Order: sequence, then C-alpha cells, then structure tokens
Amino acid sequence: MKISKELQKRARKIKVILMDVDGVLTRGDIVYDSNGLEIKHFNAHDGLGIRLARLSGLQTGIISLRESGTIRTRAAELQINHLLLGKDKKLPAFDKLRNSLNLAAEEFCFIGDDYPDIPVMREVGLAVAVQNASQLTKKNAHYITHKSGGDGAVREVVEIILQVQNLLQQAIEKL
Amino acid sequence: MKISKELQKRARKIKVILMDVDGVLTRGDIVYDSNGLEIKHFNAHDGLGIRLARLSGLQTGIISLRESGTIRTRAAELQINHLLLGKDKKLPAFDKLRNSLNLAAEEFCFIGDDYPDIPVMREVGLAVAVQNASQLTKKNAHYITHKSGGDGAVREVVEIILQVQNLLQQAIEKL
Amino acid sequence: MKISKELQKRARKIKVILMDVDGVLTRGDIVYDSNGLEIKHFNAHDGLGIRLARLSGLQTGIISLRESGTIRTRAAELQINHLLLGKDKKLPAFDKLRNSLNLAAEEFCFIGDDYPDIPVMREVGLAVAVQNASQLTKKNAHYITHKSGGDGAVREVVEIILQVQNLLQQAIEKL
Amino acid sequence: MKISKELQKRARKIKVILMDVDGVLTRGDIVYDSNGLEIKHFNAHDGLGIRLARLSGLQTGIISLRESGTIRTRAAELQINHLLLGKDKKLPAFDKLRNSLNLAAEEFCFIGDDYPDIPVMREVGLAVAVQNASQLTKKNAHYITHKSGGDGAVREVVEIILQVQNLLQQAIEKL
Repeated sequence: MKISKELQKRARKIKVILMDVDGVLTRGDIVYDSNGLEIKHFNAHDGLGIRLARLSGLQTGIISLRESGTIRTRAAELQINHLLLGKDKKLPAFDKLRNSLNLAAEEFCFIGDDYPDIPVMREVGLAVAVQNASQLTKKNAHYITHKSGGDGAVREVVEIILQVQNLLQQAIEKL
Repeated sequence: MKISKELQKRARKIKVILMDVDGVLTRGDIVYDSNGLEIKHFNAHDGLGIRLARLSGLQTGIISLRESGTIRTRAAELQINHLLLGKDKKLPAFDKLRNSLNLAAEEFCFIGDDYPDIPVMREVGLAVAVQNASQLTKKNAHYITHKSGGDGAVREVVEIILQVQNLLQQAIEKL
Repeated sequence: MKISKELQKRARKIKVILMDVDGVLTRGDIVYDSNGLEIKHFNAHDGLGIRLARLSGLQTGIISLRESGTIRTRAAELQINHLLLGKDKKLPAFDKLRNSLNLAAEEFCFIGDDYPDIPVMREVGLAVAVQNASQLTKKNAHYITHKSGGDGAVREVVEIILQVQNLLQQAIEKL
Repeated sequence: MKISKELQKRARKIKVILMDVDGVLTRGDIVYDSNGLEIKHFNAHDGLGIRLARLSGLQTGIISLRESGTIRTRAAELQINHLLLGKDKKLPAFDKLRNSLNLAAEEFCFIGDDYPDIPVMREVGLAVAVQNASQLTKKNAHYITHKSGGDGAVREVVEIILQVQNLLQQAIEKL
C-alpha cells in the first residue's frame, strides 16, 4: 500500500488510536429485538487490527454518544484501553482523556463517520473518516479509508500506523 | 448536492416528516428468532438525521401496517413525535393525524417504499420513494433517494429539507 | 417488465406457488445465538408479494429440509397455506401435496436455489431459480429471477404470475 | 469451472478439509447482544457443501482461536468431524490432529482468511484463502476463492475437490 509523505508524518507520531463505534467499528446498524435488547455487529478483521496495535504498545479507545452493553463485551474481549461511552459531546471527553494521559493532540488518531465526530477530528494529529462517512466529515479528515466501517476500516488504519512505525511485521509474528 | 427548483418549492413548506418503517428505516428485513421474538436493523445516520430534524423544530412520525416493540424502542430513543402502528390502511391514519395537527397536506413529507404507501404519497406535499422502492411506488414520488432504506435514505431527505429551509448548518452546530 | 411467450404460457396455469426457505425467502444465512436459538431474515417485499398472491386466490406453500420456529412465525403472519418442513427429501413431500390438492403438476410453481430443489423443479409447470442459485439449479429452471433470495426474488415471481393472469392491478387495490 | 493442473494435483490428495470460522464460514461479523450473548451467521450453501463432502467420505474440521456455542450448534448440525476451538495458536492444534489421524500434510486442505491462519496454510497440501482474506494471507494460498467467506467460499472449495476426485455427481445424487 502506498502511504503519502503527509500521512506518514502524521502516523509516525500516533500513540493512541481512538474511534467512534456506530458506522466505524460497525456498518452503522442500530439493532433491537422486541424485548428492547440491543445487538451489534463488529468485525473480526478489525479485532485482529486492535490486537496488533496492542501487541505493538499502542493504546486504543472508544468515544461514543451511545452506551451499550454490546460495546463493553467487545471492548473487554479486545482489551481496549479507554472506554468513553454515553457522552453528551465528544470533545470534552477527548480533552479529559488527553489531559489524564499527558499526551499531545498530535499523538492521537481519531476515526469517525459523522458530524458529532468532527470537533475531535479537528483536534487530533491524524483524523480519519471511514469510506461510508458523511461528506462534511470526510472534508475534516486527513485520511479517508478504502474500507467501510464494520468491514475492516479500523484494521486499515492500524496497519498504516504500524507500517509507518515499522512495527507491523513484528506484531504479526507475535500473534 | 443539487436540489431542483420543484423539489425546493415542495421542501420549503414541510413541517412534518412521516415515514414507513420496513424498507425505509430498515433494509426491509423481517427478522424472527425461534422463540417468535422480532429483531429490527435501523441505521445510525438516519438516527442523526431525525435528531437534526427535531433540533430544527420539525416534527417526525412513523406510519406502519405492522406493530413491533423494536419500532417503539427506536422511536423513543429518537424522540419521534407521532407513532401510527398496526394500522389496516395508511391513508385514514394520515388523515386523522393531519386533522389533529390542523396542518395542510402540503406541509407533510412522506417517505415510502411499496404499494401500501402510495395512497398517502398521493396526498402529501412531498412524496419520497427510497432507492429500493417498487417501481409503481417510485412513479408516485416527487423525489427518489440515492440511498436505500436502512442505509441513509431518511437522512438524505432530512438534509434536503433542512438545507432548503436554511436550518442545516445551525442544527449541526447544536449537536 | 417484458415476459417471454414461453413464461407467459407456463405462468398462466399456476394455482399454487411453492418455495424453498434458505436462499429463497432468505439470503441463505443460517444464524444461531450462543444459546442455540435460531434467527432468520425474511423480506418485507416478499411478504407483500405473498399477500398479493393470497388476495388473488392463489395458494402458497413452503418445502424445506429444515424445521424452524422462525419459519412457522413468518408463515403464520403471511397466512401461507402449506407448510412442509423437516422433510428428508422434497419430491415425496411435493407428490403427497399434489395428490391431496388433486392438481396437475403444471399448476404448480416452485422456487429453489440448490441441489435438493432440483427433483421438484423437474416436475412442476414453472420451475424458478433465484439469482443466487447454484449453477446446476439454474440449468433446471424455466425462469431465473433478477432479484436474489431474501431480496425480493419471491415477490418478482408472484408479480409475473399475477400480471400474466391479469390479477395484479386488482390485488394491489385490495391491499 | 476451469481447474488448473496444479490445483487438480493438490486437490486429488485431500482427505480432510479444515477451515477457520470468522471470515471463512461467516462474513467476519462478530455479533453480540446487550446480554453478552453471541450470534453467528453461517451460510446454507456452505452447509450443503459440507454435507456433500461427508457423503463422499471426506472428513471436515474447524480450527478457531475463539470458542463459541454458535459454532458447536452449527458443527453438530453439519456433523463436522473435528472441532478445535479456543486454541491459542493454530499450528500446534493442526499438528496434533494430523498425528492423531496419521495422515500426511498433503492430505489436508485448510481454508483461512487472516494472519493467524498462515502457519497452518504453509503446512498443508492445499492452502486456500477466501476472497475477503487479508493480502498477506492470499499470498500464502495455493488457491483464492471467487466467493467470499460466509457467502459460499467453503462450498466452492468442496466442489473443486469433489470434482477433481470424481465424487461430485455421485454425492449430489445421494442428497
């Protein structure tokens, strides 16, 4: 995969990969059964991507306006480091996390798909919009994935970052 | 997005956006488990669209021949104003709502996908058929969405109406 | 829609529309949860098709090697006339039904997608394979649908039969 | 279907077909409900493929890093011979199975989609990557399926093996 100089420069500094859930880690389906239970479809390739990030020493996190037991189950399985759920706005949640980790904004990557993601995307060092993102969200991204949310978009971002940081081959061997 | 003069004229008057459920707010899947429980797949981008409509002062509503707990759960989450479920015919349900709201037919938009939607589509000011609608339903529409039901069709309609009414930018900022 | 003379001739005689389930009334997904419960995805447009057939006086039926509560729930909702589930072979089940109804083979349509459907397809007056059927199954069909199973294939067949029998317009008005 | 000389040579020796689950027998969706229950989408055409393999005297098996009740339910229904679930690494699990069956590596086919599958793919006589596999996984395959995982990829592989071994027609007749 060809990675532009600009993208390389941004990806080289990333220490934490944050992402939205609906439309990013999923295809954007909001699923209920008639008892009010929620169901969520994640993706195995994304899961391996998050595992590769962890094996390489990067941190991962989720920022979502919605709270859901399905996210907690999947996040526990993947040992995602930071879970910011049920937030009213994403930017204050991001600022609080950044302060607590004592990291610069350019050390964060954020992957989003819709309007509520834009304020955080404007702050971070590497703002990514997935292929299925709304137009305005794409305009606020440094990189737009080829894959769609829930279909490997997160994996694509992780592999770019690990490749630029020369950590990919080593992480694959640790699997 | 280019919006035709005719569509602009119709969209400008809309105060209430009504929609069918199966095939419009979903891909048309009717899902059961072996205990008889029903499951329904909605869409996050449509959800944000309905939220934008509400933030702009527009009313929203659902007219469906089927009754389902899944619709009630999703409608409550999105604070949809009018829920007309389990109706035998859609037109009498629409007429009753229109009378109770004391609004003109041209102040309603209706989004449908199949034959039972046509009688209401013939009444309202802005009749929309989704991309996956049956042919005859499309022929009765003033506008056919580019997106399919369950994949952002409702969001597409909401954004057109808010853009024509100069309310979109302001609604996004309120998110 | 253009309907060939040959297809018109076959469709004109149909009194009973029979169909397989997995891959025909669904996309072919076999879904389980970790408690062993089964989940099945049907399609709203197919549902309206079956309703149109019933309103026109045609009978409908399902022949499946598998037994599932999900099929019974959906069949009850759609008032499907004949339910032949959990059969070891499809042809004996079909023969028994044909005898009990005292109808000729040419008065039956069967819609299938895979090898176990072929013996029945070789008997009936109108054998249909869905777009997603296996090659050999398609070779045994008088008609191959443009739509895939679970995505409107059954509806497509019903509309062809009703149109040829001059019953479609009237059925739509009864909805 | 055209089958290359090289593929014919490899397929002729196969006695056991092994496969990964997520992304191979499914589209790669990892699905949870808000009670932590898992849901998995298999495919009816793959199921018939596994049945054809069994009717032809071939053995089948699953090697997965994940353990799930959904796999056990589907495997029991299809009478899959070997279930190696919840393994930390796939190669030791494969080696142990091969020893217990007292078969040569060239008598095994393995169908995979991602990095953890590669060590086993390097050992077996016929290594298959599904259409939706990651690039590096495809590079380690003798054959790449036209169909994607969860959409008939396993069926495609079974039919190639049975056709090369002149067992397909006979198996179809036994259905």
